[in-house]
Amino acid sequence: MSIIADPVTEETLGAREARQPSSKVAYFGPDEPLRLDGGRTLSPFHLAYETYGELNADKSNAIYVCHALTGDQYAASPNPVTGKAGWWSTLIGPGKPIDTDRFFVVCANVLGSCMGSTGPASTDFETGMPYALALPVLTIPDMVRAQAMLIDRLGIDTLFAVIGGSMGGMQCLQWTVAYPSRVFAALPIATGARHSSQNIAFHEVGRQAVMADPDWHGGDYIQHGTRPHKGLAVARMAAHVTYLSEAALQRKFGRNLQDRDKLGFGFDADFQIESYLRHQGMTFVDRFDANAYLYLTRAMDYFDIAAEHGGRLAEAFRQTKTRFCLVSFSSDWLFPTEESRAVVHALNANAASVSFVEIETDKGHDAFLLDEPEFIGAVAGFVSSAAKARGLVR
Amino acid sequence: MSIIADPVTEETLGAREARQPSSKVAYFGPDEPLRLDGGRTLSPFHLAYETYGELNADKSNAIYVCHALTGDQYAASPNPVTGKAGWWSTLIGPGKPIDTDRFFVVCANVLGSCMGSTGPASTDFETGMPYALALPVLTIPDMVRAQAMLIDRLGIDTLFAVIGGSMGGMQCLQWTVAYPSRVFAALPIATGARHSSQNIAFHEVGRQAVMADPDWHGGDYIQHGTRPHKGLAVARMAAHVTYLSEAALQRKFGRNLQDRDKLGFGFDADFQIESYLRHQGMTFVDRFDANAYLYLTRAMDYFDIAAEHGGRLAEAFRQTKTRFCLVSFSSDWLFPTEESRAVVHALNANAASVSFVEIETDKGHDAFLLDEPEFIGAVAGFVSSAAKARGLVR
Repeated sequence: MSIIADPVTEETLGAREARQPSSKVAYFGPDEPLRLDGGRTLSPFHLAYETYGELNADKSNAIYVCHALTGDQYAASPNPVTGKAGWWSTLIGPGKPIDTDRFFVVCANVLGSCMGSTGPASTDFETGMPYALALPVLTIPDMVRAQAMLIDRLGIDTLFAVIGGSMGGMQCLQWTVAYPSRVFAALPIATGARHSSQNIAFHEVGRQAVMADPDWHGGDYIQHGTRPHKGLAVARMAAHVTYLSEAALQRKFGRNLQDRDKLGFGFDADFQIESYLRHQGMTFVDRFDANAYLYLTRAMDYFDIAAEHGGRLAEAFRQTKTRFCLVSFSSDWLFPTEESRAVVHALNANAASVSFVEIETDKGHDAFLLDEPEFIGAVAGFVSSAAKARGLVR
Repeated sequence: MSIIADPVTEETLGAREARQPSSKVAYFGPDEPLRLDGGRTLSPFHLAYETYGELNADKSNAIYVCHALTGDQYAASPNPVTGKAGWWSTLIGPGKPIDTDRFFVVCANVLGSCMGSTGPASTDFETGMPYALALPVLTIPDMVRAQAMLIDRLGIDTLFAVIGGSMGGMQCLQWTVAYPSRVFAALPIATGARHSSQNIAFHEVGRQAVMADPDWHGGDYIQHGTRPHKGLAVARMAAHVTYLSEAALQRKFGRNLQDRDKLGFGFDADFQIESYLRHQGMTFVDRFDANAYLYLTRAMDYFDIAAEHGGRLAEAFRQTKTRFCLVSFSSDWLFPTEESRAVVHALNANAASVSFVEIETDKGHDAFLLDEPEFIGAVAGFVSSAAKARGLVR
C-alpha cells in the first residue's frame, strides 16, 4: 500500500551523481579548512558547481546563484539525474533576465547536499566510510563561507550580484551580511531573515518521517545497503504541500478524481491531489539523499540573522553597501510577505538602497521557480539597472 | 533517533478501551443493518456512547454532540485512557452553555473510530479476526446514519440541537441535510461543506506516513502483534501543525530553545516547537488506532455535501427547518471562514434561519476546543435563544 516498493538497495542516479558529479568540482584540501559555526572545521571538502557565460576582463560581471533546499547547481543546464531543464531556466540564459551573454553565472551545490558537494553521503577520509551523521551540522553561514572560498578560487573579488529564493534567499542575505563589500547587488526572493516556528515544525515532521523509517538505521543506511525511501517520500509530500497555496491546489486539483469517475471507497489515490503528491514523493527519493535532507532542513531551522547580531536585524546590515531588491509572493505562506518586509525595514534603518516587490499570485512559495511574468520582469528590471550602475552596460 | 521506541507490542490503554469500552454501548444486530454509501452494509455493529443530564418527559431537550477526528464520546467526563477532563468541558456541564441541568446530552464515538464503537480494530464476526482494511470505507453520512439509529434507540424523535467542530461540524451539517425535520437547532463550528484539496493533501501525507511503517503490515498489524506507532506519530505531528496558526506558534514557541541555552548542532529537539510536536506524536499513539486514523481521514476527504446534490450546496438545505449558528475562527487555515460563509450563503438562498459568527483569535483551528470566551459566549447565547424558541425555558 505504501507508494515506495521495498527493499530499495540499488544505487540511484542521484547517489551516483553525489559520488561522481558530472559538474566541475573545486577541492579544498587540508591547507584550506572550512571553519564551521558549530565550532568544528571541515577539511577536506569540495563543491560541485556549474558556470554559465564568461567572466569579463576586470571580473566585474559575476553573479552567484544560490539554490533552494532540494535544488542543485544545474540552475540553467539540464539536470543529469532528472534530465529536466535547469531549475531557473526561466531566468538564466542567453538573452534572459540574467543574461549569460553578459554575465558570468556561478552556481554550486550547497555544502551538506548530495549533488557532488561534500555532504553526509560523502566519504569521511578519516574513517573511509560515508560521513552519515558524523558530518558536523552545518549552517547557512557555513554554506556561504564555503561559497566565498569558491569565489576566491575563481579569482573574483566582488560579485556583481547574488540571487536566490527560499533557502537560496537565506544564503543571499547571508552573503550581504558576511561580505558587505563583496556584493554589489542582491536579490533575496521568497525568503526571510529567520526560519519561523511553523517552518521549523514542518521540517521537524519531515525529519521524523525519515528517522522513523527502519531503513534509515540511525543514519548509517549506506553501510546497511538500504535507503529510507519511504520516510523520505513522506517528508517530501509533507513539504510539498507547503510549497503551494490553497488557492493553487483548488484551481489545479480541487476535488477532481484521478482516473476514475466515482470514489473508490479504498485507500488508493482517489483524488488527483493524492496522486500528484505520491508522484512528488516517489520521484524525489531517486535524486535526493535522506541525510542531506536532514542536514539542509536543520541549516534552515538554525538560520536567524538577528540572533547573531544581538537580536537586532538592522544591526546585521550596518555596513552594507549592497543595493537590494526583495521579492515576495502574496500567496506564499512558508515565507509570507511580512518576512521580506522585516528585512526591508532593517535595510531602511540603515538607509540602504532597497526596492521591494510583492508579486500578486496564487501559486504560493513555488512561484519563484515558475514562469511568473511579473516576477521575471522585476528581476530583469533590477538586474539591468544594477548593471548600469555598475558600468556593465555595453 | 526516532521518537518512538521499537518494537511496540503490548496492548495500549487505548486498544483495551476499543475492545472493552467503559462507556454505554448500543448494539445493532443482524436485524438492524447499516446501509453504507459505498454500497455495502455493516452488520452487526455497535456504538459506544456517553450521556449527560436527563431526558425530559416529552423528549425535547436532547443535544447530540459530534466529535472531531481524534475525539471521542468523553465530551464532558474524564477520558478513561488519558485521564484528562472531557474534551468539551468548557462548553458542556451543569450551569455551562450546554447546561446538563437542562439538557440531555448524547455523544457517541463515531463509527470507524477506536474508543469502543465498531471500527477497523473491531472483530469481524465472519472471520473472527480484526476487520483491519476489510471494514468497508465509511463516510460522514454513514456515521450520521448510525447516530440516528442510536437516537431512535433512545426514543428521541427530534433533537433539540446538534453541535460539533471540525469533523464534528461536518456531521452536524450532515444531520441537518439527512434529517431536515429532526434537528431543531444546529451549531456547525470550524468546519465546511466539503474537504478542500489542501486538506485532502495533508490527510494523504498522514496516511502515507502510517502505511510506510513496516509495522503497519498492510493494515494487519494486530495479527502481527505490532503497531505502526512511528508512522502514526509522524501523521499526528503533521496534522497537529495544521491545527494551530503561525501566529499562535510564534507566540507560544517562537524560536525558543528547549532545555538548553544554545543550539545543539544535532538532530535532537533544539527548539520548543520540536519538543512539543514530538510529545504530541508520542502521546497520540497510546490512545489511537492507526487504521482508524486512515478510515476517519478518508471519511473527511470524501465529504462533499454539494456533490450529493447536483453540485449545488443550496439544494442540500432546501427542506431545512433547522435554525443554524455557524462559527469560524479568523486564524483557522484548515477550515477558513470562507468555508463557513459558503454554507451561510447556501442557507440564505433557502431563507433559513442562520446566524454566523467569526471569532477573532490567533489560535487557529484548535480554538474550538479551547476556552475562548467570545466563542463560549456565542454558543451560550444561541443555545439559550433556541431553547426559548423551543419552549424549553423553565
